[in-house]
Amino acid sequence: MRIDIISAAPELLQGPFSASIVARALKANLAEIHIHDLREYGLGNYRQIDDYQFGGGAGMVLMAEPLDQLLTELHKNRTYDDVIYLTPDGEAWNQASANRQSLQKNLILICGHYKGIDQRIRDLWVTKEVSVGDYVLSGGEIAACILADSIIRLIPGVLNNATSALEDSFQNKLLAPPVYTRPSNFKGLEVPKVLLSGNFKEIEKWRDQKSMEITKNRRPDLLKEE
Amino acid sequence: MRIDIISAAPELLQGPFSASIVARALKANLAEIHIHDLREYGLGNYRQIDDYQFGGGAGMVLMAEPLDQLLTELHKNRTYDDVIYLTPDGEAWNQASANRQSLQKNLILICGHYKGIDQRIRDLWVTKEVSVGDYVLSGGEIAACILADSIIRLIPGVLNNATSALEDSFQNKLLAPPVYTRPSNFKGLEVPKVLLSGNFKEIEKWRDQKSMEITKNRRPDLLKEE
Repeated sequence: MRIDIISAAPELLQGPFSASIVARALKANLAEIHIHDLREYGLGNYRQIDDYQFGGGAGMVLMAEPLDQLLTELHKNRTYDDVIYLTPDGEAWNQASANRQSLQKNLILICGHYKGIDQRIRDLWVTKEVSVGDYVLSGGEIAACILADSIIRLIPGVLNNATSALEDSFQNKLLAPPVYTRPSNFKGLEVPKVLLSGNFKEIEKWRDQKSMEITKNRRPDLLKEE
Repeated sequence: MRIDIISAAPELLQGPFSASIVARALKANLAEIHIHDLREYGLGNYRQIDDYQFGGGAGMVLMAEPLDQLLTELHKNRTYDDVIYLTPDGEAWNQASANRQSLQKNLILICGHYKGIDQRIRDLWVTKEVSVGDYVLSGGEIAACILADSIIRLIPGVLNNATSALEDSFQNKLLAPPVYTRPSNFKGLEVPKVLLSGNFKEIEKWRDQKSMEITKNRRPDLLKEE
């Protein structure tokens, strides 16, 4: 899987891919991330990439031309399954989207910045618009990290133990049960006895019960979906 | 506003705060972010911070003791409005949450990693559990970046123009209208005439209409909420 990320502030993308699970996946060649600095495709001596919006109003807009040139360049070299624009008015990203996209080969992620990108790039190039949540961020970079992370960890071989991802929240439409580790008594708070029992059937039953309880309590909407 | 972030992988937090709007806010002393490496409070020579979960199963759990010590230390020096644990089974973070938290003074964010943190830390310390979306990430670090970014950009003085944040998606329960910048004709695609008209009343009307149209079309749920 190859992910190309287009950004007006590529410095923001350095940390999140430099360590932990994603970094290990990149090192093991299980995934590739290519970060593209939009400014390299900027116009004129100042490498302009943004301009005031037509009609007035606060906030700059990323211009069509630099994005168009970069997208044209990328498409010369390979076919992309999706060109995803990260925007608060996109479709909500969820675990099912991550599962689906983890089966793709080549993806482009476009990070908005300021007021967003010129609508005509959305009309001409973008195949999918995605929102990571109902909040506004100063740029799409953190959203791109979310997509990359949630997708890459699902690629076979990335997590040490295949069951680790399958037992996560959402994978079975339920939230995960509480977890405990040593010591068994911490400041007077005991680990639930069943977890120390060694009876795996009982432990599984307890975990299923807790998952259902927490989901009913916190996210009844997850149980209602078809 | 001061935000303390507790992480088992603090390298992941370097990039996102080093540039752009959040970096400017930090430089201008409009906000402070303090990143704490949980491993500094790890146990024994190996600075252990995680262990297998009681009851068996894949994935490690962040231990109670290092977290408890670090949290105790932080609370010695100031009062915190909230200790927020980032977890997929938390309450959904949205623009209203960001607005509310931007009025606080001191916040702690705890990033989970692997299978999460020992439940007893949630019972003893955590005042709020927050999820940034219905997907699983390899750690809470990107989620912490989302909280910090979405909160800090709302602090007065952080954005150049106060109206810039107020006109964003979600602030009026509507998605933002499309934006355009020069050139007015790009590859045959024209900017909507009204935006070039100079008639600000008509422009506002067009934007309101578009906002309503997009919201009805993509997110009818936003219009239904009280």
